[in-house]
Amino acid sequence: MPPERIRILVTGGTFDKEYNELSGTLFFHDTHVPEMLHLGRCLLDIEARTLMMVDSLDMTDDDRRIIVEHCRAAPESRIVITHGTDTMVETAAHLGREIRDKTIVLTGAMVPYRFGSSDGLFNLGSALAFVQTLPPGVYIAMNGRVFPWDKVRKNKGQGVFEAA
Amino acid sequence: MPPERIRILVTGGTFDKEYNELSGTLFFHDTHVPEMLHLGRCLLDIEARTLMMVDSLDMTDDDRRIIVEHCRAAPESRIVITHGTDTMVETAAHLGREIRDKTIVLTGAMVPYRFGSSDGLFNLGSALAFVQTLPPGVYIAMNGRVFPWDKVRKNKGQGVFEAA
Amino acid sequence: MPPERIRILVTGGTFDKEYNELSGTLFFHDTHVPEMLHLGRCLLDIEARTLMMVDSLDMTDDDRRIIVEHCRAAPESRIVITHGTDTMVETAAHLGREIRDKTIVLTGAMVPYRFGSSDGLFNLGSALAFVQTLPPGVYIAMNGRVFPWDKVRKNKGQGVFEAA
Amino acid sequence: MPPERIRILVTGGTFDKEYNELSGTLFFHDTHVPEMLHLGRCLLDIEARTLMMVDSLDMTDDDRRIIVEHCRAAPESRIVITHGTDTMVETAAHLGREIRDKTIVLTGAMVPYRFGSSDGLFNLGSALAFVQTLPPGVYIAMNGRVFPWDKVRKNKGQGVFEAA
Repeated sequence: MPPERIRILVTGGTFDKEYNELSGTLFFHDTHVPEMLHLGRCLLDIEARTLMMVDSLDMTDDDRRIIVEHCRAAPESRIVITHGTDTMVETAAHLGREIRDKTIVLTGAMVPYRFGSSDGLFNLGSALAFVQTLPPGVYIAMNGRVFPWDKVRKNKGQGVFEAA
Repeated sequence: MPPERIRILVTGGTFDKEYNELSGTLFFHDTHVPEMLHLGRCLLDIEARTLMMVDSLDMTDDDRRIIVEHCRAAPESRIVITHGTDTMVETAAHLGREIRDKTIVLTGAMVPYRFGSSDGLFNLGSALAFVQTLPPGVYIAMNGRVFPWDKVRKNKGQGVFEAA
Repeated sequence: MPPERIRILVTGGTFDKEYNELSGTLFFHDTHVPEMLHLGRCLLDIEARTLMMVDSLDMTDDDRRIIVEHCRAAPESRIVITHGTDTMVETAAHLGREIRDKTIVLTGAMVPYRFGSSDGLFNLGSALAFVQTLPPGVYIAMNGRVFPWDKVRKNKGQGVFEAA
Repeated sequence: MPPERIRILVTGGTFDKEYNELSGTLFFHDTHVPEMLHLGRCLLDIEARTLMMVDSLDMTDDDRRIIVEHCRAAPESRIVITHGTDTMVETAAHLGREIRDKTIVLTGAMVPYRFGSSDGLFNLGSALAFVQTLPPGVYIAMNGRVFPWDKVRKNKGQGVFEAA
């Protein structure tokens, strides 16, 4: 496998939430993706960019347009997007309808990376593997599985992604 | 992607080392793979079996024969093997020369899962993704990358895997 | 020092907050005090009771009356209370005005124990040491320091306790 | 309680062991005490010095003489010493026979701080509390308890300290 560069686009989501010890609330400070790549001893050629830092429930159509534009304009043909889980399927649909010549994998986490029991590192590892091996298309990688953008839904009662 | 069952064969390695607080040494107690799958909220259909719990420097040809036999006999055609990094390439070579009709991915960790800064969860996530998407063959998944069994070596000075 | 029994009264607070991965909010489930004592290999003779599980901003005068009553009725003369930091000083004042024959130490945490970077274990260790060694009185133990109940305030801007 | 300066003398021990991912062995790199004080949001006036970084089984009488000399020469009258548990009692005895006008508390950990399940933060919190409140003397603080230097032994079978 050639050492093809992979782009990571950070949009926020639970992945990157932190605990504000003064207010006792959760907030976004900065992305943990570089630290996670370091922890994973990741040696892929990666270009990471933070596009926004938002809870995906607050993501607007303007935000989604920015994500689509960045994917289109990126020189890389393999892209991982970290994203809140609540509207991940919706953003994937925007991308799926507009971009057909790149492999794009969205992933996220149910628990913030900073907290003890996060699934974030597992999900990032799987997303980076899927993005290297899947053919062009837009996918969601969660729970160890991968789904095409138009065949997945979030089961909000159980907090998992499933075929739709 | 059909929900095809994946087999995980546990052989020990740094992945599963723990700290014995009475002797101050590292030892093997039991595998952490089920706990890691739980942490990753993994919903793949997985059958995990512990074949042995050894430091890969102590792995014998008999041990490798057992691993080959289990891969051959497994009803699953997609298999992940957790393995110490020191002789992972050697075990992969045994498998690569003998098994050609299954997708087998070996992975491990540079730091025990139990310790704070382990790469284990990242590697397990990537190995499970690679095993679902790669064609039949024997591979090593480490550092976010994947290598065919006959084109990889461990760089012991740097503690990473690289193309050979 | 005789192995005198110590009572721990749990009232909630940041100490015991957890992350609800379905709603993305913080909530109280159950106390982590027994797990923390186990982690600290604590061998003190301890009787732990959960009185309530509340954010200290939501604590009412009725709640404080319950705490005072439990301290008064406890057979132990040394008591640690885990409590949210926001109104810890207020609860300490209620206790300080009413109970003079026991050593009572309130402590808490700025970051939930479940999250990576909690001060909870450090604070619990110090509170248990202070309660064994200080004369009767009501104290707050935070930031490695201890203050009499009527000479302390929380500096909310900095998230620390200081002499008042 | 006046903000009297406390000296911390670091001598190594399990507290500060790390995992060398190249060799798979445990080693000493640098002390974690400042990081632990930061995690505990400790606001005590502390002067920390590293005297040595050794496994206490390797500690010599020369090392112990250095520790005694540093305690004697320190301008502070309250001193915490982080120390391996295996010979902590022996070092405490050297100190106890020679220094009578200062409060000296030795503490350590059964599991390295860097590893997930360390008792180190709990012990450091308790040692710093004991050193502020106990009269002059030499003590060992472990398992939430404190013992005078001449009334304690390590139960090596159980990995705990107990009255002797």
